[in-house]
Order: sequence, then structure tokens, then C-alpha cells
Amino acid sequence: MTRPPLLIESPQNPQFKLWESALDGRGLKKNGKFLLAGLKTVPEALRQHPDRFERLLFTDPAQIAGWRLPPGIEPVQLAPALFRALDVSGTNFPLLVGNVPRLPVIDLNQPPQGLELLCALGDPSNLGALLRSAAAFGASRVVLLEGAAHPYHPKCLRAASNAQFSLTLLRGPRWAEVNAAAGPLCALDGGGTDLTRFDWPRDLRLILGEEGQGIPADCPALRLSVPTTGHVESLNATVAVSVALFARFAAIR
Amino acid sequence: MTRPPLLIESPQNPQFKLWESALDGRGLKKNGKFLLAGLKTVPEALRQHPDRFERLLFTDPAQIAGWRLPPGIEPVQLAPALFRALDVSGTNFPLLVGNVPRLPVIDLNQPPQGLELLCALGDPSNLGALLRSAAAFGASRVVLLEGAAHPYHPKCLRAASNAQFSLTLLRGPRWAEVNAAAGPLCALDGGGTDLTRFDWPRDLRLILGEEGQGIPADCPALRLSVPTTGHVESLNATVAVSVALFARFAAIR
Repeated sequence: MTRPPLLIESPQNPQFKLWESALDGRGLKKNGKFLLAGLKTVPEALRQHPDRFERLLFTDPAQIAGWRLPPGIEPVQLAPALFRALDVSGTNFPLLVGNVPRLPVIDLNQPPQGLELLCALGDPSNLGALLRSAAAFGASRVVLLEGAAHPYHPKCLRAASNAQFSLTLLRGPRWAEVNAAAGPLCALDGGGTDLTRFDWPRDLRLILGEEGQGIPADCPALRLSVPTTGHVESLNATVAVSVALFARFAAIR
Repeated sequence: MTRPPLLIESPQNPQFKLWESALDGRGLKKNGKFLLAGLKTVPEALRQHPDRFERLLFTDPAQIAGWRLPPGIEPVQLAPALFRALDVSGTNFPLLVGNVPRLPVIDLNQPPQGLELLCALGDPSNLGALLRSAAAFGASRVVLLEGAAHPYHPKCLRAASNAQFSLTLLRGPRWAEVNAAAGPLCALDGGGTDLTRFDWPRDLRLILGEEGQGIPADCPALRLSVPTTGHVESLNATVAVSVALFARFAAIR
């Protein structure tokens, strides 16, 4: 006989409080649980990355009628108010609870492996968009410098479309130490070499400037730029890096 | 002797109310004034597009000390609370008041002129990001289908980085009528032809699907797709179109 799913109705329930802590960076760091939401991303993650998750949260049993859950993922029913508190994007669709993987610390004295992106993007939506493009265009490692948003923040997950699960995410040092990283080092910059004429090495560290600030002047990276008409002063930062990643992907594949 | 600038202190002032109406799409449409904010975009617009503007709003005379205003742009001082009400992005930097240009209606029976982008993006920030990439990569005309956000909405201006002033913006029909538009017609779609192998015609209509919905199945446009690793199910919509525009720009220049 199948057990009926656990039902949680109290906002004081310790499990619920644990999941609630996944809604901000501090709780994510402290408790190591994250919440995945999304009509496309939740079924895809269940299919492709079941080992990352341990609970499926829902409020109305009709939401999961006909779902086959992999072993190791337990369904948990929440009172409507509790579910809504966790479903911050308002998907009204089951949520997955996962375990935040340990992010190893990179040793930047070692040479890069494949295309490594180094960034300190503090806005979780911007970081998520970057991770999505990184996964789409074959940047296998993303190094999160001090000050970067948490990669499992709900807004980052929402923007990344499950990119977290196919990338290797690493923790990096503070910004100032990047200058001493082993190369080749490149950075995007409006005044740099046209990247369509760049001969992309197989292994490379691509450094992304901070939002609105760019790359420190003393950073010894080769500056690359996306060619444009010049009709706007600069590209959106996510667009610029996505175009660079695409250009490399199209050139080397 | 130079006149001291006008000072407005009452939220009931008709001029102030006119400018306040520029903060949403309805007021923009009714009164035809827009507000440009931004530490980079305001000085750039003053320099490059002075004829688009009629007032410079500030609250502290120190904000405009040393500024040389072109004739036709009158400085107006606002009480701090009034200024803050208009400075919705919190730039604490002078704001320009401009006149929304008339957006001509396009006749889609006529063939395209250059690269025309057709879209109905309802989110003003997404539309602004698109306009920025359109201007950067040489899409000279953008056709706003029924349901598109107002291109002079503050959020759209903020994301577009003055792209509005170098593009030709046109009003288009409702979505259903696009199927009958004169071609060549293309659309971005995950399952289409690899766009790096596409021979871009000089004149082309590129149709962008609605957010999260894509292109209607009966739309007779050639489907183009951005090649990816396949590690994420799809690209961010702004990233996808920006990459497509870049690929065309890099191929034809």
C-alpha cells in the first residue's frame, strides 16, 4: 500500500521553515536547500536530474495526478497559504526541493580548463541569464567571484532554465585577485579587439566586468569587443557576453 | 540678463502633471511627452539629439552647474519631492522631457526595407533591450504589433540606452495579420534552420514570437534557430534575437 503524502499545514513546521529559507541567499548558504519552480523546468529536472532533488511540494493533489516520481523524491502536500509563500513566481505548479551542491573553490594559479567565465554579478536574474547562455554555448565552468549572487537563488534559477545542472560552478576569490590568474585571460570591453577576428584558444578565462563598472584598468586581460553599428553607446551586459559566447561556439564547433 | 529657471513646487501644477503622465503607457499615448533619465543617456541625448527635447528638469542647481543647454531646451527646477516622483529609477540626475514622435503605421503589403523586426513584446524592459540590440546590429526598422509596450515607457527607455533615437519605429497590425505580410519572412524558433548557414537577404522581416508563446504554427515564415549545445532547452528571448541580429550583422558587413 502506498503511504498518503505528508501534509504540512503550520508555518511553524521545521521542514516548511527550512524550505522557506531557500528564498534568499543567506538561507541558501546556511541550510543548503533550494526550490525549483517552473512549468517547463520542473518536469525537465525531474526527468534529467532526479538525483538533485528530495521533495516535490504541491498543494492540490490534482497538480501531480499521473506524475511518476523517481525513488528518493517524496511528495509533500502543503496548505495553500504555505505553498503560495514558497511559489514566489506564482507558477501554481509543483515545486522541487533540491540540495545545493558544494561549490568547490577554484585555484586560479592553475591554467583554465575549457572556457571559464569569471564574474561577480550581484543581481540573481542577471546571473541566471548568464548561466543560461553559458550552458547553451559551451562554457563548461563558471567561477563566481566574491560578491556574486547565489546561483540557486529563486530568481537565478528562474532566469537560468536549468543551466545550473549542466554547468560546473566554482567559487572564486575576490575581484582584486583575478589580476594574478593564470591565462590566457580575456575580458569584454567596448574598445577592444573585434572578437569576430579573434582566434579562440581551447582553454581560456573570460572575465566579465561588474554591472555598470567594467573591468579594472589594471587587469592584464586581452580586451575583446563585440562589433556593432555604433548607434548605441554599449550593449546590454548579458547580451554582450552571450554574443561573445555564441561567436566562440560558432567558430570552434 | 539670463532669466532664472522656472521653479515648480506644487504637485497640482499642470506642467508637472503632464510630465507625471509620462510614467505610464496611457499617459504617454494621451499627452505625448516622455522622460529620459540616466547618467550616460541624458548627456548623450542632449549632445546628439537635442531637437527631441524641450525641458531639462532638475532639483538642485548644482546638478546642472556648467551645463550648456541647446536653444529650445528650457531648464526647470522642481521641488525635491516632485523631482523624486519623476525620477523613478532614482538616478538623482537631471531628466529630459521629450516629445514622443508620431509612429507611422506600416503597410505590410509593401516589401521590407532593410532588416525589419516585428514584435509584440509587452514587457517594456524586454522591448527596450531588444531596441538596444536592434540599433547595435543594424536593424533599422522595428514594427510594434498590437499589444507591444510603449517604446517611450521609462523602463523601455532605461533598457534601450537611447536606441529609440536612431531607430525607425512603426506601428503594426494585430498579430493575426502578420501571416499575410510581404516577405521574405523569417522567425526565430528552436527547431529551425541553423542561422549560421543562412544566406541573409538584404531586405527581410524577422518576426519575434510573444514572450513564452513563440510563433503561431500557421505563420508562413522560414524558421531560423541559434545553434547551441542543447544543454538548456531554450535561450532567453532577448539573447536569442540579439545573437541572430549579431550573426546577420557579422555576415553582411
